[in-house]
Amino acid sequence: MSGAAARVRVGMVGGGPGAAVASVHRYAMRLDGCYDLVAGAFSRSFAQSRLTADKLGIDPARVYATTEEMVKAEAARPDGIELVSIVTPPDSHHAIAKAFLLQGIPVVCEKPLTDRGADAQELVDICEERDLFIAVTHNYSGYGIVRHAAHMVRAGEIGAVRMVNVEHASSWGASAVEKTGRKQAVWRTDPTIGGLGSVLFDLGTHAHHLLRFITGLEVAEVSAEMFTAVPGRQVFDSAYVHLRLSNGARGALWATMAATGHEHGLRIRIYGSEASVEWQHVEPQRLTVRRIGGGRETLAMGQAGLSQDAERVRRVGMGHTEGSIEAMANIYRDVAAAVRRGRARSSEGHQGRFPTARDGLCGVRFVEAVCASHACGGRWTEATGSTPSGPHGRRRGQEG
Amino acid sequence: MSGAAARVRVGMVGGGPGAAVASVHRYAMRLDGCYDLVAGAFSRSFAQSRLTADKLGIDPARVYATTEEMVKAEAARPDGIELVSIVTPPDSHHAIAKAFLLQGIPVVCEKPLTDRGADAQELVDICEERDLFIAVTHNYSGYGIVRHAAHMVRAGEIGAVRMVNVEHASSWGASAVEKTGRKQAVWRTDPTIGGLGSVLFDLGTHAHHLLRFITGLEVAEVSAEMFTAVPGRQVFDSAYVHLRLSNGARGALWATMAATGHEHGLRIRIYGSEASVEWQHVEPQRLTVRRIGGGRETLAMGQAGLSQDAERVRRVGMGHTEGSIEAMANIYRDVAAAVRRGRARSSEGHQGRFPTARDGLCGVRFVEAVCASHACGGRWTEATGSTPSGPHGRRRGQEG
Amino acid sequence: MSGAAARVRVGMVGGGPGAAVASVHRYAMRLDGCYDLVAGAFSRSFAQSRLTADKLGIDPARVYATTEEMVKAEAARPDGIELVSIVTPPDSHHAIAKAFLLQGIPVVCEKPLTDRGADAQELVDICEERDLFIAVTHNYSGYGIVRHAAHMVRAGEIGAVRMVNVEHASSWGASAVEKTGRKQAVWRTDPTIGGLGSVLFDLGTHAHHLLRFITGLEVAEVSAEMFTAVPGRQVFDSAYVHLRLSNGARGALWATMAATGHEHGLRIRIYGSEASVEWQHVEPQRLTVRRIGGGRETLAMGQAGLSQDAERVRRVGMGHTEGSIEAMANIYRDVAAAVRRGRARSSEGHQGRFPTARDGLCGVRFVEAVCASHACGGRWTEATGSTPSGPHGRRRGQEG
Amino acid sequence: MSGAAARVRVGMVGGGPGAAVASVHRYAMRLDGCYDLVAGAFSRSFAQSRLTADKLGIDPARVYATTEEMVKAEAARPDGIELVSIVTPPDSHHAIAKAFLLQGIPVVCEKPLTDRGADAQELVDICEERDLFIAVTHNYSGYGIVRHAAHMVRAGEIGAVRMVNVEHASSWGASAVEKTGRKQAVWRTDPTIGGLGSVLFDLGTHAHHLLRFITGLEVAEVSAEMFTAVPGRQVFDSAYVHLRLSNGARGALWATMAATGHEHGLRIRIYGSEASVEWQHVEPQRLTVRRIGGGRETLAMGQAGLSQDAERVRRVGMGHTEGSIEAMANIYRDVAAAVRRGRARSSEGHQGRFPTARDGLCGVRFVEAVCASHACGGRWTEATGSTPSGPHGRRRGQEG
Repeated sequence: MSGAAARVRVGMVGGGPGAAVASVHRYAMRLDGCYDLVAGAFSRSFAQSRLTADKLGIDPARVYATTEEMVKAEAARPDGIELVSIVTPPDSHHAIAKAFLLQGIPVVCEKPLTDRGADAQELVDICEERDLFIAVTHNYSGYGIVRHAAHMVRAGEIGAVRMVNVEHASSWGASAVEKTGRKQAVWRTDPTIGGLGSVLFDLGTHAHHLLRFITGLEVAEVSAEMFTAVPGRQVFDSAYVHLRLSNGARGALWATMAATGHEHGLRIRIYGSEASVEWQHVEPQRLTVRRIGGGRETLAMGQAGLSQDAERVRRVGMGHTEGSIEAMANIYRDVAAAVRRGRARSSEGHQGRFPTARDGLCGVRFVEAVCASHACGGRWTEATGSTPSGPHGRRRGQEG
Repeated sequence: MSGAAARVRVGMVGGGPGAAVASVHRYAMRLDGCYDLVAGAFSRSFAQSRLTADKLGIDPARVYATTEEMVKAEAARPDGIELVSIVTPPDSHHAIAKAFLLQGIPVVCEKPLTDRGADAQELVDICEERDLFIAVTHNYSGYGIVRHAAHMVRAGEIGAVRMVNVEHASSWGASAVEKTGRKQAVWRTDPTIGGLGSVLFDLGTHAHHLLRFITGLEVAEVSAEMFTAVPGRQVFDSAYVHLRLSNGARGALWATMAATGHEHGLRIRIYGSEASVEWQHVEPQRLTVRRIGGGRETLAMGQAGLSQDAERVRRVGMGHTEGSIEAMANIYRDVAAAVRRGRARSSEGHQGRFPTARDGLCGVRFVEAVCASHACGGRWTEATGSTPSGPHGRRRGQEG
Repeated sequence: MSGAAARVRVGMVGGGPGAAVASVHRYAMRLDGCYDLVAGAFSRSFAQSRLTADKLGIDPARVYATTEEMVKAEAARPDGIELVSIVTPPDSHHAIAKAFLLQGIPVVCEKPLTDRGADAQELVDICEERDLFIAVTHNYSGYGIVRHAAHMVRAGEIGAVRMVNVEHASSWGASAVEKTGRKQAVWRTDPTIGGLGSVLFDLGTHAHHLLRFITGLEVAEVSAEMFTAVPGRQVFDSAYVHLRLSNGARGALWATMAATGHEHGLRIRIYGSEASVEWQHVEPQRLTVRRIGGGRETLAMGQAGLSQDAERVRRVGMGHTEGSIEAMANIYRDVAAAVRRGRARSSEGHQGRFPTARDGLCGVRFVEAVCASHACGGRWTEATGSTPSGPHGRRRGQEG
Repeated sequence: MSGAAARVRVGMVGGGPGAAVASVHRYAMRLDGCYDLVAGAFSRSFAQSRLTADKLGIDPARVYATTEEMVKAEAARPDGIELVSIVTPPDSHHAIAKAFLLQGIPVVCEKPLTDRGADAQELVDICEERDLFIAVTHNYSGYGIVRHAAHMVRAGEIGAVRMVNVEHASSWGASAVEKTGRKQAVWRTDPTIGGLGSVLFDLGTHAHHLLRFITGLEVAEVSAEMFTAVPGRQVFDSAYVHLRLSNGARGALWATMAATGHEHGLRIRIYGSEASVEWQHVEPQRLTVRRIGGGRETLAMGQAGLSQDAERVRRVGMGHTEGSIEAMANIYRDVAAAVRRGRARSSEGHQGRFPTARDGLCGVRFVEAVCASHACGGRWTEATGSTPSGPHGRRRGQEG
């Protein structure tokens, strides 16, 4: 990245007052000096949107009341945005992303990519037809030590993968927070927005992507039990899922918003024939490796001997933790490079430097399979979401 | 316990050379000075048995070639054994326990109680008819802090129980140890001894009992997936189980002998509406409590303010760890007291001071339900094993 | 902070190729969008300096060969810098800081403030005479949970402070790294640059400041033992120091660059009459509280009930770690506010929102006292560095 | 050990009601079946003593009112005790131990060996003249993983030892417990019993021995600061000590009974040129190894590849913690073997299988040196206590 001149001009849809995740996106954009945030439609309320823009130092002329206005105006400007970041609730992702893609503008999109598989598939198809990309912010895959874990597991350093246990067990919805009127709590527990399985869209897709990212395996089949832990809640807030992976391994995924007292709750353990690895988001810079015979080794970012995958995203010395913002920035930095290089193929998938539309589709299909299995009393159900659906959909990479 | 005169005369079946668990039983017997080990049939090889007896300082006249001899001779002696401890492989438990019970001698028995539900039921019936007991050594329930956890959860200190995740994920069978000829590895992976689901008998019943012991809930239904992680193994070495509990809560149980690199692997997490608790056997003296709102508290044996349930089994000051031997000894000490009091009703169940035949039966029925569910593709299957089967079987205590 | 227009124009001295700490300063400047880095003298080599400037997108006209040029040119511009950040080796801090202050430009300076007490005193005097400030980047005091610790201890929540153990025990110099030619290793072990006690300037002053920041106490007297752990090294690389604090408490400080294998090594424990608190930089978001009677509580940033001091610097939700860059940015953000407010009094001291020249002086005096004590065989030596030396030096705040 | 016949007949002095440490000794005696506790003078109150004896099942004829009676009567019996265990307060150790030794009866003695160096020296001399031993129960050296640490460090696996930080920072006296009338609290804070430096006798000697045991180094010189953290206390309850070790390394020792909230507080860290090791008593089965370059390895008892020193004392499998009782029993088991072998030379020292009188002397001399240094304002003071003082006192083993 060489200088301010090279900064990517980016716009944002969503991210008005109270949108916590949007602020992480903006910290991430700023951290490496790769972006200028120059336009936005931050809120359904135009007044709120302008307020947000003012705080961010954005030209009032580039604050828009609707996505449609924004797409049109920005596409017409010689200095229009080169990338858009979508941080709205999931039910709007498809329409917004589609609108920008159709104007040739690549997208960063919060997970889940969409709330319906068919919509996700359409976005994948558009990306592939037009050689554009959507970067889906499964930001946990942005941590250096998670990348090192992926390096180790994919290189066979723990032997053949036999079992994978992953959980995203948050405490945010352990009480009836939706009754307090908190905006995010409301839409996340409204069955008309996220569907009955919103916990899977919100948390389950992170766990699912992390499993795929580190192991390079796909979830082939699921057997699921969903339920509502908090009385009176309108959606399922918890899901237990048994997994059959593409290489024959087994596993379990647990997603809940009701894990009372958890500080965060994303955690993965992968058992191989020679060793196992464990990562927890509450210690984001460390990886525990347990070798056959016992004893455990705790790897830390910055120590000698880690892989280049970890080293290339390291900003500070050993012992100087990098956190959520840096993990997100790692994705944004690679997205900026992709914009600068020209349009990246969407099909790079999760083996590339950031999760793409195909990964997003895969997550949505997983959620659909879990819901279907639950509806059938836990029947084993196929979960492979990345089956190609059109002439451009040549599936690549490791099939297990 | 007052003086050597009051020591309980105990015999042992099993526990010859190489039987690791038997030595824990013997340490436990000695620790509190409650027992004299005076008789035994330690091995199928009489020579081995006499060798063991000699090392233990046991009168050669009270070493027996068979259980039958032992029962007959000890029942006939005025100073015959008052209790027998059975530490043989599971397929022999039923016959041995039955033989001693029919002579009026109460039993300590390693888990699982039996390898078939009907056999376990018969032992329960004998106990209840004759007012005898079998103490099943689910020794993890012997830890003081585990008892404190049970106190907390049953007293409602974490609110209503919503989710329970328990695992006994050992590393002992992560490689093909049965091919090395190690005795315990051989019988634990021989389908003709422990059945295909031996991992559930061996490890799953501990996890299952711990869940019941702490929560006071029963596992009502299971949906299971079993499989063999280590290629070439003759039995399932791993099982993932979804749980529906008697109060409507959900949960997951994972039992495996193939969790590569684990130091031990027994761990339970219980999520209530107000707080959650977590206990791991690798830190046996501590309990982690997480309250709604975040922050975690780590309780340690010996600290101020723990319940009497914990305090009554404490031998040393705070920070002076007690381990497996002391946990087992806590069970043996209460068994000695029960012997001294006269025959305890078997129906005291897991809410009493040690696990009984009914708890053992419950574990065996759980294993049978898991195997049945797996055989039907993970179908939800009833797992309630403690349904009374005869006139004496009045079920007591908490029904959810 | 409202918009790009409000950004503080900042320059940097030092921070050319290979200067790791400078990059943390630059990340911190960018994170909150409070700064534009517009000028610099990044290296003694002008060519290197221009290269750095180009990478950072800085106007070539504002890259300077010397501090003198930079001061002169920037002071003359209507859009000249409003703040300078000094990230050079310690022996140059005094001259550079003085030059900018004399032109009315406030300063951010890496620790130690200077390498001689008299020089530090002069900077304090200049600041107080001209109502300017130097912010010394003891960035560990920037962590939200450290601020919460300070809140707790100063509010008396742990009772009277009795003992404080603090250590900055790094592993960076555990081998003879200076022989590898690494630039920072060379100057940090060159007695002509940092003096024999460079480890105290480099690491000891962080530990010393952290103690003062959290407890509000001063180190009154020291008894020290310095030595060289790594054979052949030209400076002391380790120091053990006994402390007598201003309230009569005792303590220990350990500074070393030779703590083989440490991941980082900054850690503080404060024992009060009612409770103790512990913080370690390897878990920067958590604080351990141990209350009398036993049991420990682990507080985490973002949980309910933390003080406003912690909350006001929080950027992300519970469980989403913030690290070194965010801690540094917390200081930079408050510095930007101070610049916007007009000149802040230097005497705000460590009870203010960032460490000032007076804190820096206090650290330098501490190092001098430690060296003097060591030279006298560990004799107890006064360490109070913040005694006012001129008419403006009215000392404020808590005196014990 | 073969059979009851081979059990060592042991007597106990001290250990009446409320003597917590005595009960640990008795658990340890019982655990391995090596001892019969057959005689005792458990309390200054003969009535209390008989009560204790009754609970322990000891023949009333072998309960004694005084040490003198006990020595005389037991020495006269053909089945008299072969070993005596002394668990009285420190000021009585010398007289009691001497009385038994002079009758040819070896001794197990709680630390500190005595409360005066001259007395300790006399006991050493008696042992060496008569080829008897005193085993001093520095029981922390009984842990298998501590023995592995000693194996590693002495074998050079961490390179040359450069720094050692050890602390025994207990919380037991963090409030004015002596005012509650608790017996142990009273004598431990009575300057007429333990002297002003009782915290060093009580806790400091454990830390000091652990350092010597693991490193094989002696503490050559000390510079100390003692003080009283709890207002109104009659003795020093805390001591900070700088150490110069026999190989030129430096270190720090902290002993306090006022570390508010600590669960236990014994911890040692040893920094070598290649790696460092850390052990904490709150996790007694694990050892942390940090290698140069970063990353840490946590060793656990029972894992593959540990030294024979660790394996020979292991009773249970990996993950099945052994605690304080087992550590003490490891010492008692080797003492029983020494009794069976005939009298062991006292001079085996800490490199043998249990700490001896010479180790005890060394600890007492260390305490005296610390007190002397403190009295001289922290002056560096020689601390070598094991200098031979008589013709039999040829010093052996590693001199650094």
